[in-house]
Amino acid sequence: MDKRVGVLGGGQLGAMLVEAANQLRIPVNVLDVGHSSAKQVSSIGTHVEGSFKDRDAIKQLAAISDVVTVEIEHVDTGILEEISGTVDVQPSWKTIRTIQDKYAQKEYLHEHGVATAKSVPLGTASVEDLEKASSILGLPLMLKSRREAYDGRGNYPVKTKEDFKHALEALGGNKSLYAEKWANFRMELAVMVVKTKDGVLSFPTTETVHENSICKLTYTPARSVSDAINRKAQDLARKAVACFQGKGVFGVEMFLLEDDTLLVNEIAPRPHNSGHYTIEACRVSQYEAHLSAILDLPLRQEDLELREPAVMLNILGGEAKDSHLQIAEAALEDRWLKVHLYGKGQARKGRKMGHITTKANPRNPTPQPNSPQSRQNPS
Amino acid sequence: MDKRVGVLGGGQLGAMLVEAANQLRIPVNVLDVGHSSAKQVSSIGTHVEGSFKDRDAIKQLAAISDVVTVEIEHVDTGILEEISGTVDVQPSWKTIRTIQDKYAQKEYLHEHGVATAKSVPLGTASVEDLEKASSILGLPLMLKSRREAYDGRGNYPVKTKEDFKHALEALGGNKSLYAEKWANFRMELAVMVVKTKDGVLSFPTTETVHENSICKLTYTPARSVSDAINRKAQDLARKAVACFQGKGVFGVEMFLLEDDTLLVNEIAPRPHNSGHYTIEACRVSQYEAHLSAILDLPLRQEDLELREPAVMLNILGGEAKDSHLQIAEAALEDRWLKVHLYGKGQARKGRKMGHITTKANPRNPTPQPNSPQSRQNPS
Repeated sequence: MDKRVGVLGGGQLGAMLVEAANQLRIPVNVLDVGHSSAKQVSSIGTHVEGSFKDRDAIKQLAAISDVVTVEIEHVDTGILEEISGTVDVQPSWKTIRTIQDKYAQKEYLHEHGVATAKSVPLGTASVEDLEKASSILGLPLMLKSRREAYDGRGNYPVKTKEDFKHALEALGGNKSLYAEKWANFRMELAVMVVKTKDGVLSFPTTETVHENSICKLTYTPARSVSDAINRKAQDLARKAVACFQGKGVFGVEMFLLEDDTLLVNEIAPRPHNSGHYTIEACRVSQYEAHLSAILDLPLRQEDLELREPAVMLNILGGEAKDSHLQIAEAALEDRWLKVHLYGKGQARKGRKMGHITTKANPRNPTPQPNSPQSRQNPS
Repeated sequence: MDKRVGVLGGGQLGAMLVEAANQLRIPVNVLDVGHSSAKQVSSIGTHVEGSFKDRDAIKQLAAISDVVTVEIEHVDTGILEEISGTVDVQPSWKTIRTIQDKYAQKEYLHEHGVATAKSVPLGTASVEDLEKASSILGLPLMLKSRREAYDGRGNYPVKTKEDFKHALEALGGNKSLYAEKWANFRMELAVMVVKTKDGVLSFPTTETVHENSICKLTYTPARSVSDAINRKAQDLARKAVACFQGKGVFGVEMFLLEDDTLLVNEIAPRPHNSGHYTIEACRVSQYEAHLSAILDLPLRQEDLELREPAVMLNILGGEAKDSHLQIAEAALEDRWLKVHLYGKGQARKGRKMGHITTKANPRNPTPQPNSPQSRQNPS
């Protein structure tokens, strides 16, 4: 418990990691610019000022940490490889390198027998190469950036050949694209997986609901999903994470297709939005689990089980400067709702400013929700 | 939620208050010396360096805060009275002034019809005046310091006349003493009470177990206590707090006598050790409740109800420098146990270094505990 943790990135995921570490006074050095969310909740004198992409800043972080981890995968894995000679990097830089390139990630999963949507890399960001990909995958397809994509940025649905040019333009002349076979999913599921020194554990299966490609809600357990699918999702998620090196939590996002097939959509090598609910609903949160994994603290499968059904709602930046604060204040009217604000300063529209988790009231159980509407399109 | 809170004192109670505030990014300025526990979990740039007894430091805190509160009652209420002209002080300085003098507190409670152990002030700290008190109260009696007492310091059991001299010596020539009628309690109970702008709410009744006059364990609900006593304890605690001015949480410690009579032992005008369990076991913790009360955020009686039975164990400094860390590490083997460490640096023997809370495992209920052993002596 006296090992010093260094985190690349100081957003809300880093902040909640620090909050979990605070309980045990595990020292966490945060690398980020300015008074970022994670730095706000710790006055340790050794935070590092700078971008989590800055090579020198990362070296500085490594020099004062025993274990270096990430709250974001869009980092320079070259420098992580370099520092891994002198400091423990978790998960492995190799894992982060593979995962941060979404096409390489899919290929890697495919090689390891993990079901994913068929994907084809584009040699160049040209109509010609997109044409080739579409002849293999058919239409519609999803055109995606291989790197630096999050919250739906870097994804573009291509429905007909008429969309080719616009899709390439929309992805900003990005040279590094791939095309993915359209997944007719009826639901999106996610499982937080924990890779420890001893094995691969998993949190419950969660249903994620996206709006404008941003996670809006999660339901745990997933609504109207059979035990069999639940187990299949757990198995697939654990299998997917098992093939990567290193320790820590991983967010595994999956598509549940109309025929009940499950495909891995993508993996995050870090705590994930779909695991926020664990703070209130599980014995050990995804953040405590991540710390436990990278610091070799005891952790068992039973520690990750769901204690109470939970719904998580993201608080996004809205039309007004203080829309998110208005939501938070309204939520405080019902103290079953646990409000988390991230202290991220200016609220851009769609920016994740906080979240709300509610657990089922055991004295006043809510009626069983209806089956979710079938959603034909990734949105 | 944008009001700035100033806290006199930066120990573990202040730290857990800050942790609760962090969730909503409520800005909390801490006044204490050095890198105290509460300052560790917040990098707000406006903490104040100095003793929470320092007049100038308190004025400095007031100048940058909208509401000033305390995590300890041993403060200079003169200066609180002075600043209350320009800043909201919660609870009222009058309340803190009455409560910090334990004899004045008892007298005040008695005047307001709240049952307490009969108490007699000593004119001087002399055998003669103790003799007078004992002729009123009988023997045994408890000799107590009126001020600055905590964790049993400042209490001395006087069993026979032969103890008089030693008792007075043991309390260090303290000029300000009082004698209290011996309470033959069979159990100690505590209730955290919340005084809001609208009313007086209460958390569940907790059983506290002391060892060497320091709180060792709490059980919530109290073991083998009837519903009637439970309700009586709640009513007494609410009645006791209702007679004080101001808002915030109050810890009410009570004796349950052999004949089921309840007496208020003492009141703390702040979060209290006997309410730590609320972090894990109630919808709203005592710390969130305190913030809610002093900031007029919504709070209802149902928010304070017990969700799951809980046991809290204090981690005290022990024989070895790292005894408390050994306990914490051992506790991590069972992740049902939630470990809190306070980052208080050097562990003196008996110093509160952390605590552990466990909730009942709903899938594996523990057998009903036996009736607690009858305890004849306050220990």
